[in-house]
Amino acid sequence: MKPQWFKQPLHRLLHALHAGEATLPDIVASFYQRIAVREPQVQAWQYLIEQDDYLAEYEGKREFYDASPLRGLPFAVKDVIDTADIPTSMGSVIHSERVPSMDASCVTAMKAAGGILIGKTVTTEFAYFQAGKTNNPHDAERTPGGSSSGSAAAVADYMVPIAFGTQTAASVIRPASYCGCVGYVGSRGEFSLRNIQPLAQSLDSLGILSNHALDTQLIRDVLLHKSLQAASVAPKQGLKLALFDGQNLGEMDAAMLSALAQCQQELQQHGHHIVPLPFAAEVAELTALHSQIMAFEVARNLVFEQHSADLSAHMQALMRTGLDLPYVDYIAALTRVDVLKQKLLNWLEEQHVDAILAPAASGIAPLKDTGTGAPFMSRAWQVLGLPTVSLPLAYHHKMPLGLQFIAAPHRDDTLLQQAAYLQQLFATAAVANAS
Amino acid sequence: MKPQWFKQPLHRLLHALHAGEATLPDIVASFYQRIAVREPQVQAWQYLIEQDDYLAEYEGKREFYDASPLRGLPFAVKDVIDTADIPTSMGSVIHSERVPSMDASCVTAMKAAGGILIGKTVTTEFAYFQAGKTNNPHDAERTPGGSSSGSAAAVADYMVPIAFGTQTAASVIRPASYCGCVGYVGSRGEFSLRNIQPLAQSLDSLGILSNHALDTQLIRDVLLHKSLQAASVAPKQGLKLALFDGQNLGEMDAAMLSALAQCQQELQQHGHHIVPLPFAAEVAELTALHSQIMAFEVARNLVFEQHSADLSAHMQALMRTGLDLPYVDYIAALTRVDVLKQKLLNWLEEQHVDAILAPAASGIAPLKDTGTGAPFMSRAWQVLGLPTVSLPLAYHHKMPLGLQFIAAPHRDDTLLQQAAYLQQLFATAAVANAS
Repeated sequence: MKPQWFKQPLHRLLHALHAGEATLPDIVASFYQRIAVREPQVQAWQYLIEQDDYLAEYEGKREFYDASPLRGLPFAVKDVIDTADIPTSMGSVIHSERVPSMDASCVTAMKAAGGILIGKTVTTEFAYFQAGKTNNPHDAERTPGGSSSGSAAAVADYMVPIAFGTQTAASVIRPASYCGCVGYVGSRGEFSLRNIQPLAQSLDSLGILSNHALDTQLIRDVLLHKSLQAASVAPKQGLKLALFDGQNLGEMDAAMLSALAQCQQELQQHGHHIVPLPFAAEVAELTALHSQIMAFEVARNLVFEQHSADLSAHMQALMRTGLDLPYVDYIAALTRVDVLKQKLLNWLEEQHVDAILAPAASGIAPLKDTGTGAPFMSRAWQVLGLPTVSLPLAYHHKMPLGLQFIAAPHRDDTLLQQAAYLQQLFATAAVANAS
Repeated sequence: MKPQWFKQPLHRLLHALHAGEATLPDIVASFYQRIAVREPQVQAWQYLIEQDDYLAEYEGKREFYDASPLRGLPFAVKDVIDTADIPTSMGSVIHSERVPSMDASCVTAMKAAGGILIGKTVTTEFAYFQAGKTNNPHDAERTPGGSSSGSAAAVADYMVPIAFGTQTAASVIRPASYCGCVGYVGSRGEFSLRNIQPLAQSLDSLGILSNHALDTQLIRDVLLHKSLQAASVAPKQGLKLALFDGQNLGEMDAAMLSALAQCQQELQQHGHHIVPLPFAAEVAELTALHSQIMAFEVARNLVFEQHSADLSAHMQALMRTGLDLPYVDYIAALTRVDVLKQKLLNWLEEQHVDAILAPAASGIAPLKDTGTGAPFMSRAWQVLGLPTVSLPLAYHHKMPLGLQFIAAPHRDDTLLQQAAYLQQLFATAAVANAS
């Protein structure tokens, strides 16, 4: 039997190439085969490079790729991220003919490190609520989440090992939870957003979807032009996590609460410490402030499309809210966020908390006719600009449930190391439970 | 004699149109005549719309323009700001063929308010140090400053009443000082930067060049979609300003220090209060931190151009510095800025200081063979994201000297009202001195 390369995370593929266990064309063929089988159902791709063109790119610069950190392996990007000579339509018919002249910086950085762009993934309209064609890979009746719908579905369904998404409210963490892959949003401001179409300047973040936190770390290092470290999981002892269950923000599925409780138990059994996060009211307030700031800024970013009849009702409603919001309320919201941020960060520091532990979404992916799911489990962390990672640690009726780990600003590297450890811990635990 | 409409600030032109003292074609003809006379010497324009095309645009939608807030009056934008179907080359031959498919949000907002784009103004290469063709309108041997060179020169030389610039270090305030117009940089984050080419995400700001602070306020309101207020100057009493002379940052011209002293005296004579700013060491530290953050981010934004032989030596050096800067130093710089910001803002609030008063540049515009001038009088305020306005309050041997007023975040409207008052006060004072 041929090895199923497509199921391997990026760091294992790199290892296989390094060890001579596989050639790049073997691995690429495996991904294209997977796409051929799964894409009719999942519909994750807005634009896919032909396999022949992919291999021609590799063969034409083989010496460069074979010596490069990413060795010609594929990556995908959400269709709000510009790609030279490839349509980038932001999920809107208004821009269906739009072909950028230039790659976004994150795309250039990946190409410079030896990644090959395999395609563009489906986004909701302007990375907001109007769904695209993508289905949840675990159940075609359910949403993959939004707005990085195609990126999360393609990665979780093993059609590509790495995809970029963007998050303004919950657009990376929520689809990662619904589809069952690792979602990561970096500390605001660290990654270049050049030639990524903005939605709300105080909130927009670039995100990475992968199947392993070690892969996420690798891509983060590529984006920041850091020297790449050897991919290995270090054991962690005595982590201190602050638990927030989200029940005061909106309706939580029992399955998610039970996954959270199980995770807590598992962590405690391994010597880690769980304390309650004493800021439920503040998190609720931040969630509301996020919505105000987002509406105000979106309405002033999308002036170009403002009067188009091709704007969805979802987006029109958001823009009306934003245009009606008085400037003083917007500034009051920004100012209040700063106050609450200081309060929360001071507590995290004083209490030596490694990360906040919270559900990544309110439950499993809802049915598609109800929309792309509720974003309330991310708005507060997003308005604070905190690094977050969602790990697929639980399942309910074969649908994934993500748990979210949230750290202080610029603690991304530590957070991803912890995430890699937790992913390994829970994989072992799952095997133990299943036996 | 025909009235010299080109010499009037925007709010007076609007008044003249409203009162029937002029027609839009009269005013437009006046600006094009001015450009025909002055452009051969000043070289402010990268791209200019033909007068016939301008008037055809107005005539074609005359009803809209006559009823609009800006009534078809001209504005210009720096050539790092995207304009649909008009080349936007960012001052670099690498992008000389680049024609965006879409306007930047600031351009769309101006057009929606009835402004007509008259052209694109010269920028330094990627809004950094490599000079473009523009000369200082007061002395062709001298620099207009950078990087918003063309915008400042065109406005100060009365070729257009309003132009947008961008500032990452000192790229609006310095050219405004050297050319002699009003330069304004808003509180970071308020204005949409959509489809403005970024240089450093933690530092980039949109700026407005005009000949009157009332005009600046009007355009700010257009950008934020606020209701436009009647343009009038309200007298201010008992302003409290914190003086910072910049001598610990670098060499200051005697003429600038003398202008600062005169301004201080004038203000005191009018019942305003000047106190020393007790943070000279902190401002110097912020100035250095700004340079680190900028280098790190520029190197990761311009990956697309990184290996181009067409990148200037200035930019190559900056990118090398940025790529060599360790990530931990970058994060340490961001973190330290936050600490110093809190310290400074707390003091401003406790002391009820309206604004910091400082030189806008180290002196008059230097000779072109020495570059575009030193940015050290802006780096600290820019890394803090504070709103700043430079007013042309003094002259030395017919060369303008700008003084800078810096306020706490989101105090932009109050700052611009104070600036309008100060501009009027000093205009009266100058007339009194000259008599």
